[in-house]
Amino acid sequence: MAEKIRVTVWNEFRHEKSSDVVGKIYPKGIHAAIAAHLKKQDGITTRLAALDDPEHGLTEAVLKRTDVLIWWGHMAHHEVKDEIVDRVQRRVLDGMGLVVLHSGHFSKIFQRMMGTTCNLWWRDGDKARYWVVAPNHPIAAGLGPYFELPEEEMYGEFFDIPAPDELVLIGWFSGGEVFRSGCCFNRGHGRIFYFQPGHETLPTYHDANVLRVITNAVRWTAATEGAGKREFGHRAVPLEKRG
Amino acid sequence: MAEKIRVTVWNEFRHEKSSDVVGKIYPKGIHAAIAAHLKKQDGITTRLAALDDPEHGLTEAVLKRTDVLIWWGHMAHHEVKDEIVDRVQRRVLDGMGLVVLHSGHFSKIFQRMMGTTCNLWWRDGDKARYWVVAPNHPIAAGLGPYFELPEEEMYGEFFDIPAPDELVLIGWFSGGEVFRSGCCFNRGHGRIFYFQPGHETLPTYHDANVLRVITNAVRWTAATEGAGKREFGHRAVPLEKRG
Amino acid sequence: MAEKIRVTVWNEFRHEKSSDVVGKIYPKGIHAAIAAHLKKQDGITTRLAALDDPEHGLTEAVLKRTDVLIWWGHMAHHEVKDEIVDRVQRRVLDGMGLVVLHSGHFSKIFQRMMGTTCNLWWRDGDKARYWVVAPNHPIAAGLGPYFELPEEEMYGEFFDIPAPDELVLIGWFSGGEVFRSGCCFNRGHGRIFYFQPGHETLPTYHDANVLRVITNAVRWTAATEGAGKREFGHRAVPLEKRG
Amino acid sequence: MAEKIRVTVWNEFRHEKSSDVVGKIYPKGIHAAIAAHLKKQDGITTRLAALDDPEHGLTEAVLKRTDVLIWWGHMAHHEVKDEIVDRVQRRVLDGMGLVVLHSGHFSKIFQRMMGTTCNLWWRDGDKARYWVVAPNHPIAAGLGPYFELPEEEMYGEFFDIPAPDELVLIGWFSGGEVFRSGCCFNRGHGRIFYFQPGHETLPTYHDANVLRVITNAVRWTAATEGAGKREFGHRAVPLEKRG
Repeated sequence: MAEKIRVTVWNEFRHEKSSDVVGKIYPKGIHAAIAAHLKKQDGITTRLAALDDPEHGLTEAVLKRTDVLIWWGHMAHHEVKDEIVDRVQRRVLDGMGLVVLHSGHFSKIFQRMMGTTCNLWWRDGDKARYWVVAPNHPIAAGLGPYFELPEEEMYGEFFDIPAPDELVLIGWFSGGEVFRSGCCFNRGHGRIFYFQPGHETLPTYHDANVLRVITNAVRWTAATEGAGKREFGHRAVPLEKRG
Repeated sequence: MAEKIRVTVWNEFRHEKSSDVVGKIYPKGIHAAIAAHLKKQDGITTRLAALDDPEHGLTEAVLKRTDVLIWWGHMAHHEVKDEIVDRVQRRVLDGMGLVVLHSGHFSKIFQRMMGTTCNLWWRDGDKARYWVVAPNHPIAAGLGPYFELPEEEMYGEFFDIPAPDELVLIGWFSGGEVFRSGCCFNRGHGRIFYFQPGHETLPTYHDANVLRVITNAVRWTAATEGAGKREFGHRAVPLEKRG
Repeated sequence: MAEKIRVTVWNEFRHEKSSDVVGKIYPKGIHAAIAAHLKKQDGITTRLAALDDPEHGLTEAVLKRTDVLIWWGHMAHHEVKDEIVDRVQRRVLDGMGLVVLHSGHFSKIFQRMMGTTCNLWWRDGDKARYWVVAPNHPIAAGLGPYFELPEEEMYGEFFDIPAPDELVLIGWFSGGEVFRSGCCFNRGHGRIFYFQPGHETLPTYHDANVLRVITNAVRWTAATEGAGKREFGHRAVPLEKRG
Repeated sequence: MAEKIRVTVWNEFRHEKSSDVVGKIYPKGIHAAIAAHLKKQDGITTRLAALDDPEHGLTEAVLKRTDVLIWWGHMAHHEVKDEIVDRVQRRVLDGMGLVVLHSGHFSKIFQRMMGTTCNLWWRDGDKARYWVVAPNHPIAAGLGPYFELPEEEMYGEFFDIPAPDELVLIGWFSGGEVFRSGCCFNRGHGRIFYFQPGHETLPTYHDANVLRVITNAVRWTAATEGAGKREFGHRAVPLEKRG
């Protein structure tokens, strides 16, 4: 793929304004922090979008020019309009990558793509380790056997998702839990990656390994675009006879 | 499981009344034909439900007493109320089995559980063969290497579903297509089986092998009930600290 | 399956004689401890076999009358004769269940079935927790969300196995590691379950939850026998024309 | 990956000399025909190796400089020395890609990597169609919904392999069979692709779509090399305490 990967980083963008703690860690928002890293990488361009933008910043025109959508939300999932969720789902099934972060597990779009509750257990403030269980997967590129975060919100099993098509990372928490923390899904012509770390009160998105995984996930979920998808008309033709 | 498996067979139940062809093959409806076979099997009881029943025959009370729901629909998918779809989805995630037949691929409940369009290609009237590709799977019990239907509506790939957790049957059609015709999915505490044959204008649900697969699928999707699910409180506790 | 499940419990059976510590925990051997539990369960009969028996206790006649083989070995994997490994592999592919315990990960038969090194990291003496990540799986029947062992040898990722067909348990270790501790594989007509706990110096096989998982695994790996496998000739016919 | 992908194309290379039919289609051998195509592609270099070369052309030095090994064999599988099979297996688990073609399903190396018999049904001379069932997979890049071969040896299910990690192509044969014709496997740090077409008496390896799939498979199986595998020491450290 000679062209650049066009990433739209979507953020609820409320905590940063309502909480001093969050505002100090992410003064311009979680989305801006992630985008600042991504746009320094070869072959990636970024755009920001937020809940309070018109159409949540996700117009048809924006989605059409988006190869990978990154999603962070937490307390306002219910404010995302169903018609925008429909639109994002269609675009994912049509080939756009989707990277869902942390509390985005409860977003309408992730629940929609999974078909399950996406429920889990949680608790504040454990030490966390993320173990690579698929060392030949592109999303594990450049990682060691594991990486650590000194503090991260605990997310624990049972995580109510379909079994991932590929499981890349398993999280360990000092309080006694485990989690499928890095999960790959193929849906339609699109690819989805769920990545568990990222609590808003912690500087998770300034961590080098976390940013590396997100960057790898952008490249992996975008890779369907390079796979000739656009050239060939492999779309199902429903309810009509073929010529 | 000492108790019997309680199956509710749901049918759109329109074609049988509007079409002489269909009415002659299934005078009491597709659901009644399937139920007639199932209730002769050891340890299975049946109930019928249809689109035009109050609440589509799927009240909370009925679903609570249903271990496995079989679903056949075709031309009136859009008439199924979203609140009933919500209810069925919750019950599947809570452990109820779901067996989706043929044109049920486009039902709201199947699309909801899959997260994809469930689109496919189709054509009338091919000879069909169904090959077992997971011979040790309980749903293949009693089948030979393959079974045939002299005529069946062709459903062809690409079938827009998540990769099944287990693929049991691949369909072959004389006109040149293949299809993932027997697909197992785990979702939440429930199990789902999609089974492709069953066009309303053909006597598919009188075929011994088709009925055998449906019976096996009832037992397999019900088996979570015997798996201790009810006894242990393995429900995720979202957004609350544990004791 | 009206008949009983015939389980052969195989043990290297050396540590119990060479080590006082092990001998006190398992005076008649690990295999005898496991069999003592299994034979109290409905519909299960047991037989013992050990490395130093003629043909390692695994003659053609014994294997023919074995529905599920349980395997525990540690320090003498290399003493198992290749021809016996061939024989066990053939029988698994023909439908016999295989339950591989703990240090059996390095057994010739498990490496043979997996095609990989089955390598892992290890360390003595951590507290362990086993989390259920497939709550609707028969092997999880009767378990809570997790169970604990106060002390168990740590086995850590990366565990060099093919991605399991179904992942039922993830292990957590107090020292900071995770492990895919309960893994299901389909191979040929057979089913395989790998279960990680079971160090010889610890009373792991006297633990109620560990014994429950092993009992469930016996029933699950045996279930192919009930699946009509014997009746139908679904064996591939290689290198010969049919009919 | 700035460097080129180094492909070694291995061929039994007997039929081409013993059969006029085969010799006319592949005068320099099947391996030479495949390599002639590959070396015209961007970023790929090729080397040939054959059964009758010293060490079958697969010395430690050659394998060390091989990123992807392509394997074609048919009537002399038993002549491949076990020590070379051991060597190739180690290299695959260490990250080398392996593409197994057609009758290579019965090669020692494929059986070794799978752990199963790799048995199947076969028959001469059907028309074949290959349907894409994973349209977003890199191996499907540039294909349409399906491609055809006017004549190909029929390989039919049940194909005795582990369920593939990803199923990309399903084959349809005019005589009534189906086959999992394009199968992806992850094993250790390596990737494996099995591709069914390729009978020696037919010009299959001159077909544009077949060559496209092989080229895509070379890139996909090589991609672990670009995934940082070499840089990070994510090798299991067996039976030794970590520092």
